[in-house]
Amino acid sequence: MSVISEPRMHVLLENECWNLLREQEVARLAVVIDERPEIFPVNYVVDHGTVVFRTAEGSKLAALVAESRVAFEVDGESDSHAFSVVVKGFAVEIGDRYELFDALELPLFPWHTGPKHHFVRVLPEMVTGRRFEVGDRRGFHTGEQPIRHAPPD
Amino acid sequence: MSVISEPRMHVLLENECWNLLREQEVARLAVVIDERPEIFPVNYVVDHGTVVFRTAEGSKLAALVAESRVAFEVDGESDSHAFSVVVKGFAVEIGDRYELFDALELPLFPWHTGPKHHFVRVLPEMVTGRRFEVGDRRGFHTGEQPIRHAPPD
Repeated sequence: MSVISEPRMHVLLENECWNLLREQEVARLAVVIDERPEIFPVNYVVDHGTVVFRTAEGSKLAALVAESRVAFEVDGESDSHAFSVVVKGFAVEIGDRYELFDALELPLFPWHTGPKHHFVRVLPEMVTGRRFEVGDRRGFHTGEQPIRHAPPD
Repeated sequence: MSVISEPRMHVLLENECWNLLREQEVARLAVVIDERPEIFPVNYVVDHGTVVFRTAEGSKLAALVAESRVAFEVDGESDSHAFSVVVKGFAVEIGDRYELFDALELPLFPWHTGPKHHFVRVLPEMVTGRRFEVGDRRGFHTGEQPIRHAPPD
């Protein structure tokens, strides 16, 4: 008899993922630099089936241009559910001045102040999401004391 | 005359980073799999200068064992400040049964229910953090309309 319940995890439809992406403002962007993972928080907006964020010059932008595959994640929690949405795709800097004019109109709230003159667009290849029931926190430790009496080999 | 203020960004001391890490529960873990960035949300706790999280068997764990360099990020916002802390290091599965007993006692709240039989410890090589002043959201668009009249070349 198993004392461990099955995971109550629900795979989200793509449109549900986009709805959640539209509700959030802060994401984390993972990129590979020199074969190593890097991660940055970014403020973003959804724009016509892509996500757009601003960045200052420097390592972040340089990395994106050099290694343009990115994984972009948002998550959150409400009531007894948590969700995580991941966008995998390519990051491209918005260089065209007309597209830049449009980007300047986006309601892109800067998470921190300071000059961030570059706009980067993530072109999605794959959008996936999951929703979970969140466990009960009250008095919670790891909650599998039975394992203490039958440790795995 | 510049209309763009200097960034009000503050580099955190390592002990400030650890204090913030101890206050949070959810982080995002970036790993490189097949030369591509992957990102996962994880529930974690700080344990003796490392971070520990649980995972189920499957792609996440497999990736960690095969490619053990990780970037681990937490962020948050309070009052008019936002912060981001990044731990870079190596992920190792906790295999020793005595260490596993200790890990089972950690107050490791599962973000989602379901069996997660593996504990992974991130051994930090570098811990960095930044705190930002958060801009004023009221009526905010991208707020650099002057650029519309003087587009960059």
